[in-house]
Amino acid sequence: MSGLLGTKVITQIGILVNDIDKVSQAYADFFGVEKPQAIITDTYDKAQTQFNGEPSEARAKLAFFNMGSLQLELIEPDEHPSTWRNYLNEHGEGPHHIAFVIEGMKEKISLLESRGFPLQQKGEYTGGRYAYMDTIPELKVLVELLENDK
Amino acid sequence: MSGLLGTKVITQIGILVNDIDKVSQAYADFFGVEKPQAIITDTYDKAQTQFNGEPSEARAKLAFFNMGSLQLELIEPDEHPSTWRNYLNEHGEGPHHIAFVIEGMKEKISLLESRGFPLQQKGEYTGGRYAYMDTIPELKVLVELLENDK
Repeated sequence: MSGLLGTKVITQIGILVNDIDKVSQAYADFFGVEKPQAIITDTYDKAQTQFNGEPSEARAKLAFFNMGSLQLELIEPDEHPSTWRNYLNEHGEGPHHIAFVIEGMKEKISLLESRGFPLQQKGEYTGGRYAYMDTIPELKVLVELLENDK
Repeated sequence: MSGLLGTKVITQIGILVNDIDKVSQAYADFFGVEKPQAIITDTYDKAQTQFNGEPSEARAKLAFFNMGSLQLELIEPDEHPSTWRNYLNEHGEGPHHIAFVIEGMKEKISLLESRGFPLQQKGEYTGGRYAYMDTIPELKVLVELLENDK
């Protein structure tokens, strides 16, 4: 059995923060690594962000740390409604998702939706696309799908 | 620089749940794997559990899934005060910690405490010991140290 995703390899943990600069510095100091340059997600024309089925202006600052075989992602969302902003407002700072690299984004989203896991947010980035599926009621954590162009 | 832990390899993600049987089944179905047998942590005479500096009767049911290079741990705490029970009561179900395998538990706990990261809970298990350090104010997630006997 390969399961719904075709993989069980967690490639990323995402953590929501209010001040990415400060928390990035704390990680750099704690783990003895360089503080990464934060990036900002693309504007709507490129990212085509959809949140709960509607186009969204939401963007976020991101910083990535390589922690063994997986990436730790810090996320500081802007004020627009998004999975990031809403979860941060409801739960405070802390872990938001675990991510998996999959193939066939459209089919995977359809498959998960048919099994009762709704699409919460999706968007494009240079070289790929992502989708957050609402797995919280069953798995107690959000699952992010990542598809990278070959 | 090797940082405070001497490692940055995340080996485990811990997720708090109310019903480990139900959530284990959900993970098994989602990822197409067998549902693992839950174990229960040892009683105080073996575990020597200390929470906030005091001996604690607290125990938890645990279930482990191998997710690529790291382990996903589900944790259903009992009613006694512990990092698990208190965090679950305050935050609800969801991610609780990221874990790192370290060497020299006593020295690492002292080092972290001297840098402003207090020990929250520690205990023994067959073949090793663990410590949860309160890194939440800085890192926005709890760090667990694991030391396994050679």
